[in-house]
Amino acid sequence: MATLPVILGSAGANEEQAQILLALAFVLAGAKLAGALVARLGQPAVLGELLVGVLLGNLALLGGPSLGALEASETFYVLAELGAILLLFDVGLESTPKEMLAVGLPATVVAVLGVATPMALGYGVGWALQPEASWMTHAFLGAMLAATSVGITARVLQDANAIRTRAARIILGAAVIDDVLGLVVLAIISGVIHAAATGVALGGGGVVLIVLKALGFLVLAVAIGSAVSPRLFRQALAIQSKGLVQALSLSVCFGLAWLAQKAGLAPIVGAFAAGLILEDVHFEDHIKLGDRPLHESLRPLTALLVPVFFVRMGMLVELENFLEPGVMGFALLLTVAAVIGKWVCALGAPRGVSGLTVGLGMMPRGEVGLIFAGIGAQLVLGGEPVVSGETYAAAVFMVVVTTMATPPLLLWSLGRDARKVVAAPPGPP
Amino acid sequence: MATLPVILGSAGANEEQAQILLALAFVLAGAKLAGALVARLGQPAVLGELLVGVLLGNLALLGGPSLGALEASETFYVLAELGAILLLFDVGLESTPKEMLAVGLPATVVAVLGVATPMALGYGVGWALQPEASWMTHAFLGAMLAATSVGITARVLQDANAIRTRAARIILGAAVIDDVLGLVVLAIISGVIHAAATGVALGGGGVVLIVLKALGFLVLAVAIGSAVSPRLFRQALAIQSKGLVQALSLSVCFGLAWLAQKAGLAPIVGAFAAGLILEDVHFEDHIKLGDRPLHESLRPLTALLVPVFFVRMGMLVELENFLEPGVMGFALLLTVAAVIGKWVCALGAPRGVSGLTVGLGMMPRGEVGLIFAGIGAQLVLGGEPVVSGETYAAAVFMVVVTTMATPPLLLWSLGRDARKVVAAPPGPP
Repeated sequence: MATLPVILGSAGANEEQAQILLALAFVLAGAKLAGALVARLGQPAVLGELLVGVLLGNLALLGGPSLGALEASETFYVLAELGAILLLFDVGLESTPKEMLAVGLPATVVAVLGVATPMALGYGVGWALQPEASWMTHAFLGAMLAATSVGITARVLQDANAIRTRAARIILGAAVIDDVLGLVVLAIISGVIHAAATGVALGGGGVVLIVLKALGFLVLAVAIGSAVSPRLFRQALAIQSKGLVQALSLSVCFGLAWLAQKAGLAPIVGAFAAGLILEDVHFEDHIKLGDRPLHESLRPLTALLVPVFFVRMGMLVELENFLEPGVMGFALLLTVAAVIGKWVCALGAPRGVSGLTVGLGMMPRGEVGLIFAGIGAQLVLGGEPVVSGETYAAAVFMVVVTTMATPPLLLWSLGRDARKVVAAPPGPP
Repeated sequence: MATLPVILGSAGANEEQAQILLALAFVLAGAKLAGALVARLGQPAVLGELLVGVLLGNLALLGGPSLGALEASETFYVLAELGAILLLFDVGLESTPKEMLAVGLPATVVAVLGVATPMALGYGVGWALQPEASWMTHAFLGAMLAATSVGITARVLQDANAIRTRAARIILGAAVIDDVLGLVVLAIISGVIHAAATGVALGGGGVVLIVLKALGFLVLAVAIGSAVSPRLFRQALAIQSKGLVQALSLSVCFGLAWLAQKAGLAPIVGAFAAGLILEDVHFEDHIKLGDRPLHESLRPLTALLVPVFFVRMGMLVELENFLEPGVMGFALLLTVAAVIGKWVCALGAPRGVSGLTVGLGMMPRGEVGLIFAGIGAQLVLGGEPVVSGETYAAAVFMVVVTTMATPPLLLWSLGRDARKVVAAPPGPP
């Protein structure tokens, strides 16, 4: 096979395949080893993956080869996107529509505060430091700061045996709403840019339309999916073929991701909706048959593709950018806006719940912020990228800092709580 | 994200991503359902996947849309190739270098007979029916008939409780040698075509060089790998990170596939070597730690990507070709050559072992034959493709027929044996 492209006259496909193979070999080993290393330091594995990406993407600075061709590879891009899609599917699997409706008022207030404030602060930072840029660029900065990545917090809460406290339940509930709000913001931004790109001015009515479309997609997908999927999977059970449930679930995930893309939304919105629809409850009979729970049986797949996404995101950071005057200051200011923006969540904590713990728990940013930054880096408005190389680097800096700072600060705050607040009893379901 | 390409001015990446998402959704659900269906008929799932591919690739005949753009997509190609690589990795995992050296004389004779005869017969069919084509085209026909796909046979032997008979042990031993021989033939063909494409005449010395390179790669990779991998994985164990062994194993697989490609061999040769090196024995300590055996933990990954390979192979069949005069006859003749070519294996069976069972057990063709056909379909020699659309269709026909015919015929032969031959006792390891 190595010789095909020579004959076809297009060295592309096979050179690309060789690159992808080598990249997968390095990404897998590097990401996993770096993940294990940072895990020893009490940090989430995703940090290690990002840093491996930054290292690979900046090898040229160390006299190594440039991987620009790999960064530009369409196949590498699609593999990374599949990683992001599987990641959001996994996030969706963790909650159910019922849980979403039952999060309660305090969690909703926390979520809304935690999305609105960082957006406003990010907009402000952009307005102050890049006054020449368009309002859309400022809005983009804000949007990048909006979505919490609660996985890290959940892990710390679990390790500290605090997952059943009221603070934990508010954080985890808010995270579900936060996910949805983040995706709606993403949909709005996509719509605005689509309109700007096609030259259509987008009025307030247009924005409302996009919001309605995004919410409509989620509501319809979840409503129809929740009604259809138990029946679908009951029939699949009748076929009694091992692995069929996994295949159909992935099929639903990719199908809804496609549908979302066709509807002008991001594919991850569809993947998240697919995750919400598919509950392990539907699969109980399959598990009795010897199949493993869905989130568990997907792990080898996510273990291969999700690091590809994070490593690619890291590769897009150009370290030289930090040497430009003002970039480091911009990165720090953006990070401060991100941190303060989520600490405001403390105001939403009800009496008897530590606002500090809630604010710190909402602090880490991750995949959705990176997805935003990646999108912005490719967008051009008035001849300038919406997210410049410098801004992209600053955004990744913000993700790394908020993520690294969370575990120690949250553990400290939980220790304070334990001396003051009585842990909530395991309440009714 | 849906709107990026509009701004970038290259609708490619995102249109391709949408296509891939939809294709994955259909391929997964379709392949799995069709697999379950044919499994009910006592047929291997791969048949269902191939047929789904044929259906998808020929939707236009039924008035449906043409999927030509998907077939031509580089990303879809790379995903399918990753499927083939993982498949051969999996095949390699099933045997160890020690087992290979211990297959014994009868199995070796059976394997060599079963590779040489179909190659000669296939060459003859080409020479008789396509006298105007080059000798390389004829050799390609022969090569497509060479490699046994023993998975189907192993399954039948297992289901019939005959896996410990001497006939079964000879078949399974021969299959290991058969795999290696098949890959060496593939390497030779690749080398010959590479030479032809670059205009270098390839003498006998050149062919010997290619054989030595292929064998050298396998021997070196296996020798170095067997020495290094236990140490590597012992150190990985010391890190005590769950999933690390899987990630490193895949990394070795992709790394060797890349190395093989860089050495001018097919990537699957490297993947197979990686599988041979990595023995579950190395991982026993990891399994104690809670990790699952490698071939098992890879299953979700192979379950996603291997069907992509088979479905894509099916899509490349153009059913119209069977309407061309002579194509059906050619397909039948090729199939007869394939069947008789492996029945000759019966001559290698020692006294007291049913030659008929051995010959029938070696009969099914699968992935390697399809990989050959796919390569040939892309090769052009003297302005003509080495494997024309008609020949490709005939090759897939041959794979389908030999695969479908094996289970019933083998079961019938095993029934005859059981009445005559005493099952071999479970011998010393």
